[in-house]
Amino acid sequence: MAATRKRKLPVLALDIGGTKIITALISPKGEMLAREYSLTLADEGPEAVIRRIFSAIDHLLALRNMTLGQLEALSIAAAGPIDMAGGTVSDSPNLPGWRNIPLRNIVKDRFGIDTYLINDAKAAVLGEHRFGAGQGVNNLIYITVSTGIGGGIIANGKLYFGESGGAGEVGHMTIDINGPACSCGNIGCWETLASGKALAREAIRRLSAGEKSSLIDMAAGRIENITAKEVSLAAQSGDSLAQSVIARTAYYLGVGLVNLVNIFNPEVIIIGGGLSKMGDLLLLEPARQVVRERAFPLLAQAVRIVPAKLGDDAGVFGAAVFAFQPR
Amino acid sequence: MAATRKRKLPVLALDIGGTKIITALISPKGEMLAREYSLTLADEGPEAVIRRIFSAIDHLLALRNMTLGQLEALSIAAAGPIDMAGGTVSDSPNLPGWRNIPLRNIVKDRFGIDTYLINDAKAAVLGEHRFGAGQGVNNLIYITVSTGIGGGIIANGKLYFGESGGAGEVGHMTIDINGPACSCGNIGCWETLASGKALAREAIRRLSAGEKSSLIDMAAGRIENITAKEVSLAAQSGDSLAQSVIARTAYYLGVGLVNLVNIFNPEVIIIGGGLSKMGDLLLLEPARQVVRERAFPLLAQAVRIVPAKLGDDAGVFGAAVFAFQPR
Repeated sequence: MAATRKRKLPVLALDIGGTKIITALISPKGEMLAREYSLTLADEGPEAVIRRIFSAIDHLLALRNMTLGQLEALSIAAAGPIDMAGGTVSDSPNLPGWRNIPLRNIVKDRFGIDTYLINDAKAAVLGEHRFGAGQGVNNLIYITVSTGIGGGIIANGKLYFGESGGAGEVGHMTIDINGPACSCGNIGCWETLASGKALAREAIRRLSAGEKSSLIDMAAGRIENITAKEVSLAAQSGDSLAQSVIARTAYYLGVGLVNLVNIFNPEVIIIGGGLSKMGDLLLLEPARQVVRERAFPLLAQAVRIVPAKLGDDAGVFGAAVFAFQPR
Repeated sequence: MAATRKRKLPVLALDIGGTKIITALISPKGEMLAREYSLTLADEGPEAVIRRIFSAIDHLLALRNMTLGQLEALSIAAAGPIDMAGGTVSDSPNLPGWRNIPLRNIVKDRFGIDTYLINDAKAAVLGEHRFGAGQGVNNLIYITVSTGIGGGIIANGKLYFGESGGAGEVGHMTIDINGPACSCGNIGCWETLASGKALAREAIRRLSAGEKSSLIDMAAGRIENITAKEVSLAAQSGDSLAQSVIARTAYYLGVGLVNLVNIFNPEVIIIGGGLSKMGDLLLLEPARQVVRERAFPLLAQAVRIVPAKLGDDAGVFGAAVFAFQPR
């Protein structure tokens, strides 16, 4: 009886990214009852970010005029590898200074209700699998391509955690052994070539070398501030430098996808994250073409490479799915 | 009653590699009752190889004075991706000319008893998991480093097939985007840099460029015939060129292992195949060092990288395990 009553309560889910924090109230049926954004300001370090997490939770409850007793649980999706046993963020390339921070207990101690912690890309794959582009699929990889590249794996119908909960760091496979150093300590990671950061860096490099582009006007001359978003807008307006930079990124994206197809033989690969908003023509179709040309034919034929459906909300949906799972 | 009787019969298992065919008789308890080798002579194409498969089966039965009725089943491990539904070898870089060959039915039609077909590296991971270095491990990757590089994955305690049975082609992940073309059609695959073929190619390249080495005497001047085996022997005798070539291979091996550690967070990676016989000092320890330096610390700490225990017999043991599985 108590269990039945509890399941009707929503989860307050958070997605802590390198750039922003999303806070959402999600019902067991997947209804988004409320949603707020705030900035992570990750450069200020873990203590400041944790204060903002507390305040984001308080804020959403205040907005909805709710108490903690009206929640099933708190559930947090966070960037970087998570030690599932300890509930700690062990090491996050996109959250500077986070090393072995026991975020689950820190939040649980402050609010006093059940609290879950899961890697943001794992949360996103759970969200897309249950409510998005991966419904009913047994072998599925979700890739989030934004500032960095994260991933989550559904194998034989279940989220795959690996031995210590850290599986799915697909952004940190070397695809260019002579490539750039990655913030994770590895060399030539997929993320250093196919992420939003890599895309912007390449545009800035070419503009600094004197190439012409409408990006220079868009940035009012401050080309060092150009991000993937501006490059995408310029490309859509026909800017040839922007298009060429995105074509290169799409190629690198495809090379990493070939690796995942050959290793996993998935039925579906879902591409989410900021860069996926560039859409099929600029990004996904050229990447699919690389897969068709280079992956084992049997495996290339088996896979559908599709955009995510839940957008930025995959992480909070998935954090909620994780909290609602029977234990 | 019939089922109980059948389980007591051995499986006649074959492992069809690019170089040799192993034929073995294996009991349900994992006893090796007989074993024979023959050459694959893969360059002669599928029809010739299939004739040799038939004759290897006939030969082992004749040696043991057995009939087909005294077998539980035939079970074949073969190189390259296998379409599990059709029982076909769909495309094998190390078996030239094999494309969509329905090997399972070809053998079954010839001998008229239950016949199974499984990828050789998947068979090997089953063998090592059940009888070798991976007993009791839930998240396990087996790598075979020989002419090529193959792999098999145990996820959450079960062999992972992927959507069409082709998962585990870890040798065909790009680690050098500007690297050599691979026989599979991809570029800079792990196999093009860290396999026995790559090792021999690099030794030959450096000798052809005029470097000195005891390998020249070993090969009686015919340096184009040098294989990984000679390089290994020369290195063990202190030859510095051979040691340097192996150190480079160990580095490349480590780079690919970092990828697998970051993606899978396995508890154990088992290294089998011809190259693994070089042992800890020359090959495995330098590769482990790359993993310690480059993989996410949490994941690097979780993994043990160990040599295979079953040697060349992992494939036939695993083919037998596969045939004995309840269906």
